Amino acid sequence: MASSSSCSSCMLHRGLFVPKEIENRNRVSMFNDKSFSVSADLAQSRILVADQKSMKWNQTQKFSLKNPIKCRALEIDSAPSFTVGKKFQLDDVIEAQQFDRDILNAIFKVAREMENIEKNSSGSQILKGYLMATLFYEPSTRTRLSFESAMKRLGGEVLTTENAREFSSAAKGETLEDTIRTVEGYSDIIVMRHFESGAARRAATSAGIPIINAGDGPGQHPTQALLDVYTIEREIGKLDGIKVGLVGDLANGRTVRSLAYLLAKYQDVKIYFVSPDIVKMKDDIKEYLTSEDVEWEESDDLMEVASKCDVVYQTRIQRERFGERIDLYEEARGKYIVDRDVLRVMQKHAVVMHPLPRLDEIAVDVDADPRAAYFRQAKNGLYIRMALLKLLLVGW
Amino acid sequence: MASSSSCSSCMLHRGLFVPKEIENRNRVSMFNDKSFSVSADLAQSRILVADQKSMKWNQTQKFSLKNPIKCRALEIDSAPSFTVGKKFQLDDVIEAQQFDRDILNAIFKVAREMENIEKNSSGSQILKGYLMATLFYEPSTRTRLSFESAMKRLGGEVLTTENAREFSSAAKGETLEDTIRTVEGYSDIIVMRHFESGAARRAATSAGIPIINAGDGPGQHPTQALLDVYTIEREIGKLDGIKVGLVGDLANGRTVRSLAYLLAKYQDVKIYFVSPDIVKMKDDIKEYLTSEDVEWEESDDLMEVASKCDVVYQTRIQRERFGERIDLYEEARGKYIVDRDVLRVMQKHAVVMHPLPRLDEIAVDVDADPRAAYFRQAKNGLYIRMALLKLLLVGW
Amino acid sequence: MASSSSCSSCMLHRGLFVPKEIENRNRVSMFNDKSFSVSADLAQSRILVADQKSMKWNQTQKFSLKNPIKCRALEIDSAPSFTVGKKFQLDDVIEAQQFDRDILNAIFKVAREMENIEKNSSGSQILKGYLMATLFYEPSTRTRLSFESAMKRLGGEVLTTENAREFSSAAKGETLEDTIRTVEGYSDIIVMRHFESGAARRAATSAGIPIINAGDGPGQHPTQALLDVYTIEREIGKLDGIKVGLVGDLANGRTVRSLAYLLAKYQDVKIYFVSPDIVKMKDDIKEYLTSEDVEWEESDDLMEVASKCDVVYQTRIQRERFGERIDLYEEARGKYIVDRDVLRVMQKHAVVMHPLPRLDEIAVDVDADPRAAYFRQAKNGLYIRMALLKLLLVGW
Repeated sequence: MASSSSCSSCMLHRGLFVPKEIENRNRVSMFNDKSFSVSADLAQSRILVADQKSMKWNQTQKFSLKNPIKCRALEIDSAPSFTVGKKFQLDDVIEAQQFDRDILNAIFKVAREMENIEKNSSGSQILKGYLMATLFYEPSTRTRLSFESAMKRLGGEVLTTENAREFSSAAKGETLEDTIRTVEGYSDIIVMRHFESGAARRAATSAGIPIINAGDGPGQHPTQALLDVYTIEREIGKLDGIKVGLVGDLANGRTVRSLAYLLAKYQDVKIYFVSPDIVKMKDDIKEYLTSEDVEWEESDDLMEVASKCDVVYQTRIQRERFGERIDLYEEARGKYIVDRDVLRVMQKHAVVMHPLPRLDEIAVDVDADPRAAYFRQAKNGLYIRMALLKLLLVGW
Repeated sequence: MASSSSCSSCMLHRGLFVPKEIENRNRVSMFNDKSFSVSADLAQSRILVADQKSMKWNQTQKFSLKNPIKCRALEIDSAPSFTVGKKFQLDDVIEAQQFDRDILNAIFKVAREMENIEKNSSGSQILKGYLMATLFYEPSTRTRLSFESAMKRLGGEVLTTENAREFSSAAKGETLEDTIRTVEGYSDIIVMRHFESGAARRAATSAGIPIINAGDGPGQHPTQALLDVYTIEREIGKLDGIKVGLVGDLANGRTVRSLAYLLAKYQDVKIYFVSPDIVKMKDDIKEYLTSEDVEWEESDDLMEVASKCDVVYQTRIQRERFGERIDLYEEARGKYIVDRDVLRVMQKHAVVMHPLPRLDEIAVDVDADPRAAYFRQAKNGLYIRMALLKLLLVGW
Repeated sequence: MASSSSCSSCMLHRGLFVPKEIENRNRVSMFNDKSFSVSADLAQSRILVADQKSMKWNQTQKFSLKNPIKCRALEIDSAPSFTVGKKFQLDDVIEAQQFDRDILNAIFKVAREMENIEKNSSGSQILKGYLMATLFYEPSTRTRLSFESAMKRLGGEVLTTENAREFSSAAKGETLEDTIRTVEGYSDIIVMRHFESGAARRAATSAGIPIINAGDGPGQHPTQALLDVYTIEREIGKLDGIKVGLVGDLANGRTVRSLAYLLAKYQDVKIYFVSPDIVKMKDDIKEYLTSEDVEWEESDDLMEVASKCDVVYQTRIQRERFGERIDLYEEARGKYIVDRDVLRVMQKHAVVMHPLPRLDEIAVDVDADPRAAYFRQAKNGLYIRMALLKLLLVGW
């Protein structure tokens, strides 16, 4: 969501200016003084507060769910309690870097509430009346189903595009910006997957509604990064002081790169890199960790690393990155396998994680061990996405 | 929707005969005298009234939304007020030609109500319990999302087929008629896009439920035509007396052809055709306009036309129509561009429209001008489709 | 649904053991004595009863629909009436052979109730809050739409995957078991179509939620078999003592094979096989019928068979099975056509059935005859699927 389509600044810094085109649509300006301005977005049933200092839009949820059928214009008068400038706000989810430790904690708290919602009732109606568009320029069934399940578990509705690249007007040469401006007319939030790095940010700049990046090429996949960190906290009980072994394809896996980035926000974290030579972790992440005082080391001894770590994070060697060098792929893929031997040296409280899909880098007989956390990890993706949808659509 | 599968007459003229097969399914005949017959469609929760004179089915909405769970058979007794022969009825939406000026006005009035519904509440439940099937034999993400959003904004549900041509039993040789008769068993209304001209009419003849044509090959795309006219009225405030410049690919664009056709229903309209020689407006439309006393002229001066018009309707040169003659395409596409120079000569109240997707026939820096109406136009498609779904499913 | 992912036994025989991993998720053990154990599945809002003797899970619906928002944990205390071991239970729908006559009757009774629900109200809310995933590894638009319509007619929601084979992580080499364990985290029931025989059973063994087989390769398509038998009962009024002619491609059609299998469960059934030599019914079914004392004969006289039968079940000659031998296909396809001549010799109460899609093996002018039951048969698929979804999700 951007406050102006011509503004290409960071999506976390918004000016006070409400462009005519957006005002025309749904918003009525309510008041505007030196410290903040308020406008009510009638269509989205939320009040937008622009704090002069932080230049951020803040949305409150005060009146959003009480009587969903009732005219909001009336309710605004009788429920004028805004949260101004104090609480952080979420306009879009574009990259792992946008989250600091406080925001992560806040999101995780909501994710925990979502676990209860999903488990204890026949479905929430928190997002009833809201419509999410899944605009996928490359297929990713797993991610798409996770988002769509999250939306529907909260009572929301979904418009699906499974293969927008091939099918849509994009094939006729339409720009992403134009597509976004059309689709935002049909929905309240867009979950986008794209084959180009930076596409999600471009979309957010054009859009008047929230954008969630569900992966943009070799770039970012922030909800995966969030669910990984959330899973570590849920499984191990803490993030400060943990030891994490990142194993497998560390060169091409955006998952492990984002995870390393987020772990750097916590105290006394130690990271081990275990990978075939051909797919070693790149220098940029290593330098970043060093600059953030995060201890890391490379190792070629999976057993030793596994015996020390709280988390063994295994990844798939991505065949698609090797092109015709099948020989190199075959050499790399068999090198570090998590099997019962690895489990044997792991600590009792430690867990094995994996972003899935897995091939044989984790042996199937590991699944039955309680420390095999990867399917719970996948399920945590649902809770994280429920939390983000709630936060973006109705606020805290 | 047809009253008989063997009847191939116009979908706006229906006989009194209710075939056994349809009666079997959901309808009970209620009474039948010289002036009209009445049957209640229990599954569709509407009463069908066949007026002897006009030979049209008319559906009333009297008892449709009050107590949706309650047995309709009972309600029929206590709410026997039918509208007979007075109000026009809508059974299917097949082609732009089926609408006269009165019907257009009536639809536009409902579309305005839909704008309010979409903007002011957390979603209507007018179509709760209704199921729309989108049967797309060729992909059109934009149109499909617009219809599905319209249905869901009104509380209805959707069954989606994004690529029926490749996937369905059509690949095994099933006729369209058989497919329709199967799908109508699963849904309450079918929105169909097809690659063959006339397919929608064939479907309507077979179907016992309403059909909306979402484009059939080079043939018709009536909801696009309706939203274009609706947009002109919304933006300019009137339709009589307007001046419209149709620009770009006038030979292949069914949009501009349908628009010219519908504009002929209004008074004192003046149409300008501005196009490269290779894609000039065809004679059939010119002759039709002349026969309807609509003034038109061809021009190769976009600036002059733009300075006189209320609406500059730009279209994309369709590369796919040029085959291997890329040279001709390249020559044609650069000829008439709407840019800031064109905006400068346009009147203050005038607007630029475009059916989208656009390539570079409208410069991106035009977007910020309030006269750039094309994204509002796309949004109007939502309101028109909401209106049509409401009218076809629950009546006026 | 399996009680353990490592247990590969028949899905109708379940042990008492509730694996930790499932307990962790949603179930709390309630009590466990010599005769049965009870655990409450909080997420699925049902109580699972494991009868020691039959080793089957039994689910009751006592507390499932009353107050869907209310916490189930509380309700369990106040509604402790279980059905133990008496009523049959349905965990998965994998193959036609799993149903005996009593179960078929019970399902058909629920299907009749579903007809009323579909016809007389604006939609049921029986499955509100439940989420069905359609995981289709090969496209089958007809079957998919039928299941999705069934779910939505009962107020449930759907996650769709139209072409899981090409799109999903399966393309990256993920096993079916892993896919199922991920998708079950996003949904309450999985409807699966697969290109490999036995895939549905493998899925059911992995899954902690119910699986419905919507066709697995040349293997089974049990819901088609159920709807066929249901249609015969609905149209003819009985199943004992009926005469059925199976016509067309009897070698490749899994439909006719399953139907023959199920008909053997009834008394005094007589089956006629009428097919081109190249696609005759295989010996395994003939031997099975003989072993079950079902009378059958082969005939090459369609007229004579049609004059004797209650049901003429026509099928399509499947071109895709003939490879390059188009000549053999052409010879076979024209041999037995159901046309008005066949209708003329058929009895007044008899019906023509066909699993659809049809090509020209039934002449189009047969459609208008009331004995043409194939579109009603397709519609019955909706009722059968509604019934199965209800039974699997909320019980009897």
